[in-house]
Amino acid sequence: MSSPPPLLPVTGIRWGTASAGIRRSKRDDVALLECVPGTQTAAVFTQNRFQAAPVRLAREHLKKTSPQALVVNSGCANAGTGEGGYDDARRVCEAVARALGIPTEEVLPFSTGVIGEPLPVERMVQAVGRCAEHLRADGWLDAARAIMTTDTVPKGVSVQTDLQGKPVTVTGIAKGAGMIRPDMATMLAYIATDASVHRDVLDSCLRHAVDRSFNRITIDGDTSTNDACVLLASGAAGNPHIDSTDAAAYPALEQAILSAATSLAHAIVRDAEGGTKFIEIEVRGGATEGDCLRVAYAVAHSPLVKTACYASDPNWGRILAAVGRAGVPSLDIHRVNIRINDQSIVLSGDVAPTYNEALGQEVMAEHDLRVSIDLGAGDERETIWTCDLSTEYVRINAEYRT
Amino acid sequence: MSSPPPLLPVTGIRWGTASAGIRRSKRDDVALLECVPGTQTAAVFTQNRFQAAPVRLAREHLKKTSPQALVVNSGCANAGTGEGGYDDARRVCEAVARALGIPTEEVLPFSTGVIGEPLPVERMVQAVGRCAEHLRADGWLDAARAIMTTDTVPKGVSVQTDLQGKPVTVTGIAKGAGMIRPDMATMLAYIATDASVHRDVLDSCLRHAVDRSFNRITIDGDTSTNDACVLLASGAAGNPHIDSTDAAAYPALEQAILSAATSLAHAIVRDAEGGTKFIEIEVRGGATEGDCLRVAYAVAHSPLVKTACYASDPNWGRILAAVGRAGVPSLDIHRVNIRINDQSIVLSGDVAPTYNEALGQEVMAEHDLRVSIDLGAGDERETIWTCDLSTEYVRINAEYRT
Repeated sequence: MSSPPPLLPVTGIRWGTASAGIRRSKRDDVALLECVPGTQTAAVFTQNRFQAAPVRLAREHLKKTSPQALVVNSGCANAGTGEGGYDDARRVCEAVARALGIPTEEVLPFSTGVIGEPLPVERMVQAVGRCAEHLRADGWLDAARAIMTTDTVPKGVSVQTDLQGKPVTVTGIAKGAGMIRPDMATMLAYIATDASVHRDVLDSCLRHAVDRSFNRITIDGDTSTNDACVLLASGAAGNPHIDSTDAAAYPALEQAILSAATSLAHAIVRDAEGGTKFIEIEVRGGATEGDCLRVAYAVAHSPLVKTACYASDPNWGRILAAVGRAGVPSLDIHRVNIRINDQSIVLSGDVAPTYNEALGQEVMAEHDLRVSIDLGAGDERETIWTCDLSTEYVRINAEYRT
Repeated sequence: MSSPPPLLPVTGIRWGTASAGIRRSKRDDVALLECVPGTQTAAVFTQNRFQAAPVRLAREHLKKTSPQALVVNSGCANAGTGEGGYDDARRVCEAVARALGIPTEEVLPFSTGVIGEPLPVERMVQAVGRCAEHLRADGWLDAARAIMTTDTVPKGVSVQTDLQGKPVTVTGIAKGAGMIRPDMATMLAYIATDASVHRDVLDSCLRHAVDRSFNRITIDGDTSTNDACVLLASGAAGNPHIDSTDAAAYPALEQAILSAATSLAHAIVRDAEGGTKFIEIEVRGGATEGDCLRVAYAVAHSPLVKTACYASDPNWGRILAAVGRAGVPSLDIHRVNIRINDQSIVLSGDVAPTYNEALGQEVMAEHDLRVSIDLGAGDERETIWTCDLSTEYVRINAEYRT
């Protein structure tokens, strides 16, 4: 795995990082984002009923005002920490507010890491001060590194587009490698653009992008308590302000943000804990979107399919068995076709006449697998992305806290 | 893991076993059950839409007539084998019919093992003949061994009860260690009693038992294509015939069959592929049975909870996160209490005041874990059983076909 491509600054947005020594390491584990006044912000959060303290506080602050700063720490999720955890999150926001000279409500807090342990608030407060002293427009890569937990590479992307003659940049970072099955949100992801855009349009662009990117990946089916995705628009690009009636710039911005979000979502799957394969699962021919997604997730979450992928074993029976148990009552298994990459595997519910084991082993040996499942029942189509299940995944998660 | 307790013969039921060399081994891999005329039979099968050829044929035969014989092979599931697989299953039934002098429709076929490979029909036909020559009333343990695949121990149980002054025996065997999340059925299980009982009562007893035993276990969430559970009643015990109006003997028989089914279901979980822990998950205080089961299965299927159990790591945050994502919209996390064995872990959604890490490690080190989750929202209660997720599970399923 390599580092992300160069991350372009977004005018009006600066990041600073510092170390609070949260996991006994010396690496930077706190990141602070400051944005210029007038920046519009949209955010989505985890749908897990068990929500971390910073998620609760960030939602409250977002309702009251427009944020001027985000503060993120890795190593400690500040989840399952009760009212004390909520007070800790507020103390961190207060420290940011003091350092930047803004109201506490204009700071959104985020945490990721171990559940059930308290934040080291004093060290966080000091680290926040150091972050504020070193805010830089080119701080994106350092921020991507500071928010990593079990990630092995920092994840970031930049997209450039042109809106009504003005060049506009979209840059984003994300983290996540395990406890990944985002639900109307994602692991931590921060995307910013210098486009000038109405808040409602920004909200729509974020939901459009998240539904088609972060909400279509799964590593282990475990939705996090701390998921959040934030989209900022500083307005510094000087393009004509985009509102929902703009038939040209709105779709162009929407597409640029989707492109950035998809790139980050794929980077999370490629860095999956213990993952050795990147697997795209496309389900076509479904009667409904729900049927397509049920089949796709049943295959993506099947430990037997995942271990077969890990072994590069063309065990197509496991895929067909997962399709069969996906909870699509009208499914006719005799209409199901399955391809892996360019290889036809299952035709009309039986092994394809052109298939043999050697061809299966050849295709399964590839790193990137595209499992295409046609249900033969309609016109709907959905795509999700996942990874395999290795002994390394078990080792990482059996040893994570020790 | 040890062998099952002594398995008592059931008058009117005989088993014979032989080797067809299906997986290149010399061990017996075919088992044949013959029952006396007049035996009543109830059966449930997998709800997976992808059903193996023997499941299709067994359902058809069961609709037409009352079975006099069951034939089971391990090593090959005869699933995903198309019309050829269906013909193969019928040829095996024909061989049994010839050997026992009964109509083909009175034979039910069952297969378990690798999906997508053809049955070695000729060798099966010869093996069936040898089985028929060696039918024995005390053949239960040999049959339990013959139907094993990745199982490490044979699984069986005997229960004795008294119905209206007559001693009655219930003996059952089962197999299964992976691809286990039965859905209205189970892996292969065969239970017989010498009770004299009406077919409708037998059906009710089977469904009652399966819903509370095999349908409450999960190893990896993968519902098999070949699940089946058969309950036979030979009537040889000479008790007064039990019908649905019998207020004393009916509940007693129901209880005896549930007891046998529960014992077999637990034996499957204790022999889970790579499993090192036996985990009971009890969800209480649910508003509905569905809420209780959604929470229980979310916890049981969470790879993060399962790997924490494997590591004996008291990572209660992962349990609470799984509860939170279980899809119970009305869930109030602040009312949730969690105990593991005798240890209170979570109280009102936060870590319990009496809890500390040392206590957690002590309780998690035990082999049998009872995770008790109180949702604080109603009076419903459900219990399921599962196991941990180890590197050994991944190794077994990455290497199963090689």
